[in-house]
Amino acid sequence: MKKADIGRLKYGIEGLNTFNSTPEFGTTRVLFTDEEVAGRQFIKKIMSDNGLEITEDSIGNIFATLKGSDSSLPPVWTGSHIDTVLNAGMFDGMAGVVGGIEALRLIKESGIPHRRDISAVVYTSEEPTRFGLSCLGSRALSGKLSLDDTKNLIDKDGKSLYEVLNSLGYDLSKFGDIPKKSGDVFAAVELHIEQGPKLEQHGKKIGIVKTICAPTNYEVSVYGVQSHAGGTSMGDRHDAYCAACEIALTLEKLARKNTNSDYTTATVGRVNVIPNAMNVIPGQVDFTIDIRDTDYQSKNILFDTLAKSFADIEQKRGVKIEYKKLNEDMPIKCDAAFTEIIEGYCKNNSVPYEYLISGAYHDSMMVGLFAPVAMIFVPSKNGISHSPEEWTDFEDLATGVDLLAEALLEISNK
Amino acid sequence: MKKADIGRLKYGIEGLNTFNSTPEFGTTRVLFTDEEVAGRQFIKKIMSDNGLEITEDSIGNIFATLKGSDSSLPPVWTGSHIDTVLNAGMFDGMAGVVGGIEALRLIKESGIPHRRDISAVVYTSEEPTRFGLSCLGSRALSGKLSLDDTKNLIDKDGKSLYEVLNSLGYDLSKFGDIPKKSGDVFAAVELHIEQGPKLEQHGKKIGIVKTICAPTNYEVSVYGVQSHAGGTSMGDRHDAYCAACEIALTLEKLARKNTNSDYTTATVGRVNVIPNAMNVIPGQVDFTIDIRDTDYQSKNILFDTLAKSFADIEQKRGVKIEYKKLNEDMPIKCDAAFTEIIEGYCKNNSVPYEYLISGAYHDSMMVGLFAPVAMIFVPSKNGISHSPEEWTDFEDLATGVDLLAEALLEISNK
Repeated sequence: MKKADIGRLKYGIEGLNTFNSTPEFGTTRVLFTDEEVAGRQFIKKIMSDNGLEITEDSIGNIFATLKGSDSSLPPVWTGSHIDTVLNAGMFDGMAGVVGGIEALRLIKESGIPHRRDISAVVYTSEEPTRFGLSCLGSRALSGKLSLDDTKNLIDKDGKSLYEVLNSLGYDLSKFGDIPKKSGDVFAAVELHIEQGPKLEQHGKKIGIVKTICAPTNYEVSVYGVQSHAGGTSMGDRHDAYCAACEIALTLEKLARKNTNSDYTTATVGRVNVIPNAMNVIPGQVDFTIDIRDTDYQSKNILFDTLAKSFADIEQKRGVKIEYKKLNEDMPIKCDAAFTEIIEGYCKNNSVPYEYLISGAYHDSMMVGLFAPVAMIFVPSKNGISHSPEEWTDFEDLATGVDLLAEALLEISNK
Repeated sequence: MKKADIGRLKYGIEGLNTFNSTPEFGTTRVLFTDEEVAGRQFIKKIMSDNGLEITEDSIGNIFATLKGSDSSLPPVWTGSHIDTVLNAGMFDGMAGVVGGIEALRLIKESGIPHRRDISAVVYTSEEPTRFGLSCLGSRALSGKLSLDDTKNLIDKDGKSLYEVLNSLGYDLSKFGDIPKKSGDVFAAVELHIEQGPKLEQHGKKIGIVKTICAPTNYEVSVYGVQSHAGGTSMGDRHDAYCAACEIALTLEKLARKNTNSDYTTATVGRVNVIPNAMNVIPGQVDFTIDIRDTDYQSKNILFDTLAKSFADIEQKRGVKIEYKKLNEDMPIKCDAAFTEIIEGYCKNNSVPYEYLISGAYHDSMMVGLFAPVAMIFVPSKNGISHSPEEWTDFEDLATGVDLLAEALLEISNK
């Protein structure tokens, strides 16, 4: 098979990166903003230039299909997303979209016959940036996001996903056609950047994912007493921020020493201090907790242990702590047979690889609910992601695309 | 002398409170906004209705004067401020302005002769809400704020205090006339709400201030590595927020156990987490530190001790911590002779009182740099201030105004 063309990968990644609402600080392309809609057009153009057949479902998942010799068989998918968090990098998601299309081009131009259809997919909004919930497109495909749910997902301007889809002309009467059932898709292989430092640290070029961690998210509110920073003595204050700090550090400690699973992270990422003035003791702090784990029960044990500390903090500081679960997803194990195909290619071609756990979730986490999934990671420089400093060398991305093309070809002939 | 009229006090306080940019949540009246400018007009109307002679200096300090029999003598002042922090209450500052005018009315209507002029003063912007620096008017009076300084005080919209004063028609060519020197003012007595719980807890109606604590403010920035909340293992992360939490809790602990002075507070009030997203490890956190103390050196020792912990946190967490001092003021001791006059009135009239330290600063902190000052506190319900829940019973305020009138009369005849 021909090798991936770095010029084409750059054209796709850098071209997509021009659709960016924060060019002064990283990449921001939020679902169904002008930039994201333009990004979709840009990707569709590359898909059609490569002779792929494009369809789009009622939540905006885009499928670009390379027909196989027997389209009656369940197809093989490869894909990722083109939306970002705020002030992100230009590889997370985009690597798998642009790389997936390039892999299909390589298969097509190789002229080697394949039985099953192979589709390059853009899943709608893997990031929770706009509506607070991740993997909207792949979640709908898995049947875990209904049309009714879209009415309850509200962005910061008060618009629901339902309204936004409607205003963009998506045919919501066909929303019921989105979900796939087990057997509809033969396999889904996602190419993605590692978003961690392991491959670089170990001198590997390919990561083969064993398990995709899934997040559970909480919103915590600490209610203290807003009062004067000078007039209220240290003994008289009920400082919501100090209580919130104590919770964050307790959470960090619990996640660090967690032994209930192979991999656990816990993060306080969003913090809102009220009233947020230099000379006022914070009366309220709202913050989010993000827990990821390879094991579903381990997440619950971790949060329950944290929540047990709340009574102590409430008592000691005279504050009130409330929380609610925002979201909870199931960790997914990758398909052993398909990951072995990927490993076989690495061995035969002397590509240094290792098996990894994906601390980040991906659309494959939702796709894994209805189809066997596999994931290929390429190195992230210094392990940094969700940051303007996110970087993957195009040579490394090309290695991943070559592997993806070989794997897709082999799987599509199963 | 006649007793303070609660109806007039309510009219002043509640009337002023209608000039409020956040009527749905407490009181917000920020320097030279439409609401604050209208509030100034409202107060000037009450001043002139009471037959007081109004002047205003180049930074907007308002003086309403009741002439004595010998205007050549240095005058007596009483006053406070009408601006607020965000989402504040309706008494902090306003009690001393409305109460001061009422005290002058009582003196005038008592017909008892007095030698010195007595002025009710509105000091411009005691709160640092708009320009990040407190006590702008009284600071200028003390000579610690020059016309050049006003060019470097910039609000969040990029406007300088200089520009704002100019656009409102203040005559900046006369800015040099603002500062007073020692001897220019015979005494300044400020009536204020306690902003703490001591009077209420001890069943006292009047607090006589011994020392006014002064703030030192810092801005601290913690630089970590912004990265993916799932992809970055607990061991690989450099979480700026967890480091900031550790600093806040260390500061709290140091302030609680400080034994270098009578009274110390330390507060982290404003916190800005970047990028502030649920699924991103914070890469930067900027926050403010506010330290108040009766003793200047004690503040420095406290912050130096805190700063010594930074190297450890930097080392342990792989973050960088930077800080700068934003402001530093000197604690002020109230004048013993004038506070004895106040105490004498309380004793003679069986008003339960106690001596207090003012943890909050006041315009008297700056006025104290050029004149002998005294302060009278009235109770704050539950000790809450800088909050929509701030409250002082009007009966308690009236008690303070009666005392203020007697004290001003006695002092003006010295």
